[in-house]
Amino acid sequence: MNGHGTENDFVLLPDLDDALDLTDDLVVRLCDRRAGVGADGVLRVVRDASGTFFMDHRNADGSRPEMCGNGIRLYVRYLVDAGLVPPGEVSVRTRGGVKVVEVRDGSVVVDMGRAVVGEPVLIDGAMATAVDMGNPHAVLSVPSVDALGVLAPDRLDLNVEYVEQVGTRHLRMRVHERGVGETRSCGTGACAAVVAQVLAHGAGRDEAFAVDVPGGRLVVTWRGDGHVLMEGPAVLVAEGELTEDWLHGA
Amino acid sequence: MNGHGTENDFVLLPDLDDALDLTDDLVVRLCDRRAGVGADGVLRVVRDASGTFFMDHRNADGSRPEMCGNGIRLYVRYLVDAGLVPPGEVSVRTRGGVKVVEVRDGSVVVDMGRAVVGEPVLIDGAMATAVDMGNPHAVLSVPSVDALGVLAPDRLDLNVEYVEQVGTRHLRMRVHERGVGETRSCGTGACAAVVAQVLAHGAGRDEAFAVDVPGGRLVVTWRGDGHVLMEGPAVLVAEGELTEDWLHGA
Repeated sequence: MNGHGTENDFVLLPDLDDALDLTDDLVVRLCDRRAGVGADGVLRVVRDASGTFFMDHRNADGSRPEMCGNGIRLYVRYLVDAGLVPPGEVSVRTRGGVKVVEVRDGSVVVDMGRAVVGEPVLIDGAMATAVDMGNPHAVLSVPSVDALGVLAPDRLDLNVEYVEQVGTRHLRMRVHERGVGETRSCGTGACAAVVAQVLAHGAGRDEAFAVDVPGGRLVVTWRGDGHVLMEGPAVLVAEGELTEDWLHGA
Repeated sequence: MNGHGTENDFVLLPDLDDALDLTDDLVVRLCDRRAGVGADGVLRVVRDASGTFFMDHRNADGSRPEMCGNGIRLYVRYLVDAGLVPPGEVSVRTRGGVKVVEVRDGSVVVDMGRAVVGEPVLIDGAMATAVDMGNPHAVLSVPSVDALGVLAPDRLDLNVEYVEQVGTRHLRMRVHERGVGETRSCGTGACAAVVAQVLAHGAGRDEAFAVDVPGGRLVVTWRGDGHVLMEGPAVLVAEGELTEDWLHGA
């Protein structure tokens, strides 16, 4: 199965009984956009003895990130569509802790946990708001994301969001992800952008912000209790089976 | 079904009864590497009333090229693996005429037709051999393809091959394809490279040359009768079905 959330795309690998030895090499081959299926990462679907689902998320290089907001939407959309869980709220174990996810009609809502605001940081000579969403972000306010050209922040040890305000509760964002470069979408980055916006303007807590990224739209709410809710699309593209030839191929 | 030949990758769409209205828009969506299946092109498999197979090849932008050497290997590999034709020689109708293809164990051999040698052309200030393989090529001899950096030929109206000789019957090649840019492989380009090499050295007719491209190895023979045979891999990666959600999605 493969699919995407705001054009962050994944191979879903159902392995309910945790029988598969998913090596780094196999992940790299699966994610190869020409010689494999092609994706940003793999989501292995595992169910433990108690019935809880674990999201074994690997990046295209085989590494094991803690959490992925776009990936978990797709993961839970798959669980519901495959009849593995009933629609409604489901808890999923990730390397970044247990996350509560809810599938609505066309979209999926994820409780991304609590945002932690840090000391401001200097990016490209400007003050950026530091927000930790389990991973580190620096949010810069810019007049226009289209005018930026190629993103090349002078800090590469965190994710840098460039955010343009286009309406009262409407942002546009481009993101330079740590270790990756510019991407079509970053779920935790959209959360960090809204937290920074609410802090800067002293308004919008508990309200939904539309965040337009190159790959689509995310809707983010920073709740009064500190948790950030992120809602967005999750599209299953195709269901398939790898050929024996490919699996045994070099 | 999707697969690749020397990392030139395709979505195979079986439509034996020619019932599908494959619009440009659907081709673009299928080839999208994030929101679709992802490929360089689509190969629709059609069988006419007489039992002859037609390769309806579309580029990722929906356009209809005449022939594709990497695509037709994959196409015929699929016909054999799916039991639609017996192993051995099969004739396939393409927009560039009928081609004879033979599936061997690990690879597929295509009779690419007759090479037509033209007047030399000037590329980047050097004389290049002009070879028409149904599409126009200019072949430049270079001391090292690794040393070239980014390919930016001063002629963009034909395919330009940069060819390094690494052994008596062994070439390395990088290619800048007309309308595309540098690619991982170009079947007709490998044929043109061998024709130019045989002409330049006055030797090697009817002998097999190994041509290493970034995506793998092709083996090319310029036969005495003027036809060029190209042998190369064809790997079916996965068989699958598009979801209704994706098919009806925006």
